[in-house]
Amino acid sequence: PLKRKHDERSLVFADLSRQEYLQVQQFMLKQKDLDISTNQITKPWGNFLFLIDLSLPKKADVLAYLDGKSAKPDREATVVVFHGAKGYVKEYVVGPLPDPTYHRDVTIERYNMELPITARTVTIGEYDLLFKYVGEVFSKLGKLMKESFDVDQNKKVNAFEQMPRGIRSGDRNTWISYFRDMSGMYIHPVGFELLINHESVNASEWKVERLLYNGQYFDTVDELKEKYETGSIKKIVYKETPDYGSLKPRHKPLQIGPQLFNAEGKRYSISNNHVLYLDWSFAFGLSSVTGLRVFDVRFKSDRIIYELSVQEAMSVYGSVTPGMILTKFLDASIGIGRFAHELVRGVDCPHEATYVDTYRYIDVSVPVRYMNSICVFEHNMGQPLRRHFADFFSNSYGGMVNSALVFRTITAIGNYDYMWDFIFYQSGSVEAKVHATGYISSSYLVDGSLKYGHQVAENVLGNIHTHFINFKVDLDVLGVNNFFQTKDMEYVNVSLPWMPDHYAMVPQLVEKQLKTEQEAALRYDTKTPRYLHIASNKTNRWGHHRSYRLQVFSFTGDHLPESQAEERAMSWARYKVAITKHKDLEQFSSSLYNQNNIWNPAVDFSKYIEDNENIEDEDLIAWVTTGFLHIPHSEDIPNTVTVGNGGGVLLRPHNYFDEDPSIHSADSVYIDPG
Amino acid sequence: PLKRKHDERSLVFADLSRQEYLQVQQFMLKQKDLDISTNQITKPWGNFLFLIDLSLPKKADVLAYLDGKSAKPDREATVVVFHGAKGYVKEYVVGPLPDPTYHRDVTIERYNMELPITARTVTIGEYDLLFKYVGEVFSKLGKLMKESFDVDQNKKVNAFEQMPRGIRSGDRNTWISYFRDMSGMYIHPVGFELLINHESVNASEWKVERLLYNGQYFDTVDELKEKYETGSIKKIVYKETPDYGSLKPRHKPLQIGPQLFNAEGKRYSISNNHVLYLDWSFAFGLSSVTGLRVFDVRFKSDRIIYELSVQEAMSVYGSVTPGMILTKFLDASIGIGRFAHELVRGVDCPHEATYVDTYRYIDVSVPVRYMNSICVFEHNMGQPLRRHFADFFSNSYGGMVNSALVFRTITAIGNYDYMWDFIFYQSGSVEAKVHATGYISSSYLVDGSLKYGHQVAENVLGNIHTHFINFKVDLDVLGVNNFFQTKDMEYVNVSLPWMPDHYAMVPQLVEKQLKTEQEAALRYDTKTPRYLHIASNKTNRWGHHRSYRLQVFSFTGDHLPESQAEERAMSWARYKVAITKHKDLEQFSSSLYNQNNIWNPAVDFSKYIEDNENIEDEDLIAWVTTGFLHIPHSEDIPNTVTVGNGGGVLLRPHNYFDEDPSIHSADSVYIDPG
Ligand SMILES: [Ca+2]
Ligand SMILES: [Ca+2]
Ligand SMILES: [Ca+2]
Ligand SMILES: [Ca+2]
Ligand SMILES: [Cu+2]
Ligand SMILES: [Cu+2]
Repeated sequence: PLKRKHDERSLVFADLSRQEYLQVQQFMLKQKDLDISTNQITKPWGNFLFLIDLSLPKKADVLAYLDGKSAKPDREATVVVFHGAKGYVKEYVVGPLPDPTYHRDVTIERYNMELPITARTVTIGEYDLLFKYVGEVFSKLGKLMKESFDVDQNKKVNAFEQMPRGIRSGDRNTWISYFRDMSGMYIHPVGFELLINHESVNASEWKVERLLYNGQYFDTVDELKEKYETGSIKKIVYKETPDYGSLKPRHKPLQIGPQLFNAEGKRYSISNNHVLYLDWSFAFGLSSVTGLRVFDVRFKSDRIIYELSVQEAMSVYGSVTPGMILTKFLDASIGIGRFAHELVRGVDCPHEATYVDTYRYIDVSVPVRYMNSICVFEHNMGQPLRRHFADFFSNSYGGMVNSALVFRTITAIGNYDYMWDFIFYQSGSVEAKVHATGYISSSYLVDGSLKYGHQVAENVLGNIHTHFINFKVDLDVLGVNNFFQTKDMEYVNVSLPWMPDHYAMVPQLVEKQLKTEQEAALRYDTKTPRYLHIASNKTNRWGHHRSYRLQVFSFTGDHLPESQAEERAMSWARYKVAITKHKDLEQFSSSLYNQNNIWNPAVDFSKYIEDNENIEDEDLIAWVTTGFLHIPHSEDIPNTVTVGNGGGVLLRPHNYFDEDPSIHSADSVYIDPG
Repeated sequence: PLKRKHDERSLVFADLSRQEYLQVQQFMLKQKDLDISTNQITKPWGNFLFLIDLSLPKKADVLAYLDGKSAKPDREATVVVFHGAKGYVKEYVVGPLPDPTYHRDVTIERYNMELPITARTVTIGEYDLLFKYVGEVFSKLGKLMKESFDVDQNKKVNAFEQMPRGIRSGDRNTWISYFRDMSGMYIHPVGFELLINHESVNASEWKVERLLYNGQYFDTVDELKEKYETGSIKKIVYKETPDYGSLKPRHKPLQIGPQLFNAEGKRYSISNNHVLYLDWSFAFGLSSVTGLRVFDVRFKSDRIIYELSVQEAMSVYGSVTPGMILTKFLDASIGIGRFAHELVRGVDCPHEATYVDTYRYIDVSVPVRYMNSICVFEHNMGQPLRRHFADFFSNSYGGMVNSALVFRTITAIGNYDYMWDFIFYQSGSVEAKVHATGYISSSYLVDGSLKYGHQVAENVLGNIHTHFINFKVDLDVLGVNNFFQTKDMEYVNVSLPWMPDHYAMVPQLVEKQLKTEQEAALRYDTKTPRYLHIASNKTNRWGHHRSYRLQVFSFTGDHLPESQAEERAMSWARYKVAITKHKDLEQFSSSLYNQNNIWNPAVDFSKYIEDNENIEDEDLIAWVTTGFLHIPHSEDIPNTVTVGNGGGVLLRPHNYFDEDPSIHSADSVYIDPG
């Protein structure tokens, strides 16, 4: 028995369907002047239709539609074309679906710059050439490859690229590190790295710029080959290594652990991209670029959150080896949602969860269906949401168990798996959480390595790194006009009213309103007020501003110093929370192009607050950064565990309701022994 | 099918049995010179046997016994007698059980001071007199009590005492605030507070020192009575208030939420006070004074934790009203474990949990059994403990669900309920967590109140306060000889090896050893290293020190300034983590006497580190403080929810094992589509 009804208007936020991807693809192919290819292995010098993704309508248009004041906004797609033939990347908006009539170049509108072709994500087409190119290098080094790495016709090593690809804008020089072809290759580095210049779209101009073998640098393949063969260098002699990266069970299950079951059926419902759960409702989507997101989150019909979305996952590594010494991964540039694969029942989500398929079009030739890539379930958290036992004066008990809805996807981006959870509590809170698991990145142990981490296997260093995650939190507290309020305590020396000669330090409430974007950009390296609120001028029954509080859970390391050229591409990570005035053109804190043009990023978040706009009575966006410092240790082998390796933000009502809404939950229990 | 065997040696940590309490009680009653009463309403001027609790044997003796090197240490009890007739409190050790032959006064040994009788906890006997005394006051104020509070023969108001009781050592002046006799009285203040001097053990000397009525102070009952009757003061006129504190369900359950079940039976076992769970084993106890604790925590037979225990729960309040203006609650002085009542199946713990009874002797005349006051269950956390999906090069999936053992009690100390969890993960981590729920403390709204919190109901202020919780963490990492290590990152400007002219800021690992107690006392108001380790000189397979890391989850407010006389009684709260050298006589960070002699506390934790002992190669204890700042808001009505209102410490292996021990779990799942 559902308390609310599904609303088809949620489709305004829905990812493109298979049909819609095809409509867009076909429309773009009809634009003969663009000369676009959809072949998955289009060469870099071709014009490749890399991405089709939903283009969200303007917020004002969506709100007018949702609130019944206007028609449904046009359905549009963002199309990214890598114009290799012309040397640039373009973003187009294509619409209206289902029968597109226009494609509009929005590159300058969105990024205030042209996007050089070197800013593009490496495609399957480019990898195909790169692997062939490396194959030729390897074949020149046949003896070394065989003796050091046991590579021959039957055995290979696997590549893992490091990023950024160089040191200045325009560079596309990639250090590729090699790993044994074993399970968990990421923790089996062989000690061989290649610096390849693949800046030109013309693969014939590519070259090997440097080689690293067993900690020694070589300028050319021939130099390495010669020195290896003459024995003038320190050699690696291949030996088999244990299969410590394997995830295969070592014991048979004797007895399964506890399971969740819904004895009386599910208390939530999903229709299209719309979810109902008790008093909650929301729409959802999964962007290939940024990942999981929910929209129009309502509690008892009142919209609380317009958008809650993953924006970026960034890591900065330390190493003495050349690949990882500069490594700064910006996952949205590869695509976060792109890697939301099938979730495994009973492990990734409970058996009884509901699994949702998604469709994506990124670096492919046809839309791809990802079965069961989102899961939704109600979870019994195994603890009371609230309870009280009255002991004194009278005995009674009231409480309720904490059952909450979990909305999840997991993205396996190379070595790491990030679990993304949005959790909806009966007390009116919504939580965004991320946990990391999967394989650490590692490097071959050489002299000086131990400054950068711990050894975790034979010849293997687990490299120190940071995890920074950015969430966009667009709370709309009773409409879009809000202000940003902080609350904290301070001790004040006060005279006791009944004995005025005696003073005591007493905690007082300190409330402040931060009125401009720069005041409200709360840096991680400064002390921030303990309570952060998106507040409305509307008051609750007791005259207090109705608000939602942001409580950030974080164990971040230090952010890259701003002196570094790469920092602007990840400038959101300076701030635990930063508040901006909403703009449709400031939709994301990062971009698809920040990784490969990290020195001149298409989106530099800090620019959003540079104009220091007034944030009083405005539509506010909170950009929240969480994460953790990761110093790998032997227990990261084979996989990092989720326990303790995460962060998030809890959005909690604070004087928003006149009482805890869970008091109305039918899950409440009351015992009166009297 | 259990992997390990129960060990009866856990009984060395077991709380006293019903029989043992009686043996001690009878033995003490035989000491005629002590002239002890066990009558529950013994008057303050009598000698009252207040507490019998397990006296833990010396650690060295226990270790020798557990390790098979010596016989079982004598079983002893701590006995607390309030010698009202003599004006002091005494702690005795009584033993050996079951047939005691000695009672030894250990007061000076344990506290280096005599304990004045004013330091004692208020007993049922004293409350009995206090209530009678207040009854007389009320009867003098009959008209006021009726008109303002509707108090008469049939209707009463309820008392809630504020602490500390005065402003200097020896004081026992208690502000008592009155609340409507409704459910959740704590959020129904009536606006009447009495300052009662009950310092003397002779109740005939007690007096009302001050009265507060509707924000106005009066020196005597007669003054208030007269001014009330002549109408020269601002009156409170009684009116009924809605029952907003009620926890009664407002809706009938239509459909129950998800439940946990153990399809193939429980994977843990409890025998006496010994728990087995997969590779884990531990002993447990519940001290009436300090609360939940576990001992001799082992993973695969190796002891990792000697003791993990709750020490103290402290709150500092702010208010303009006289009771709460000074309020600093130190719950161990009332007894934390004392209030572990029956847990409710399906709310406090899952239906399928195992429930354990406890027996206590505190402020009673006979030992009392508390049914089902501890619960143990394995919980499916609804997420993977680890997982990886391999996308590139080959497709495979490995992972396992996070099922962990939860060991829980909930203590309802007046208004608040603290949920205490110790959680045992298959990855070798142990977590201590606390969450707060129940009713906030509140005060009657008067002029100036709003500096100290938010209004949460008509005439009711929810007062700002801190929650500070202290845990004792006695990790023994491969024996008792350990050192304290910190790890963190720092950016270092390094020249790139393959292009030495180019520099980059690269994260490096920074490891330090803190060698003295004062260096290792990490204050909350300073920046602390991100990784804190109790480490062994023994190394893992890769030459790194085997260690456990302490990861503290905390949202604490500001600690009371050290300028305040009351601060020394809670000086543990200065430190996020403080490391001391183990001493049997530094068993607790607080005491039963810290509340009522807060200005001259029996235990001042800061003294443990004042001697600044060397902590290299010693038995180390980590004292961990967590908590949160609580600015009450309307959603705290009727009850504070657990979500977001908690803290804890995660003890994680770090280079302790050579690989993640969960890889050996039979819960592992592997899928190879190949
Ligand atoms: Ca701006
Ligand atoms: Ca907003
Ligand atoms: Ca010491
Ligand atoms: Ca120790
Ligand atoms: Cu990591
Ligand atoms: Cu509180």
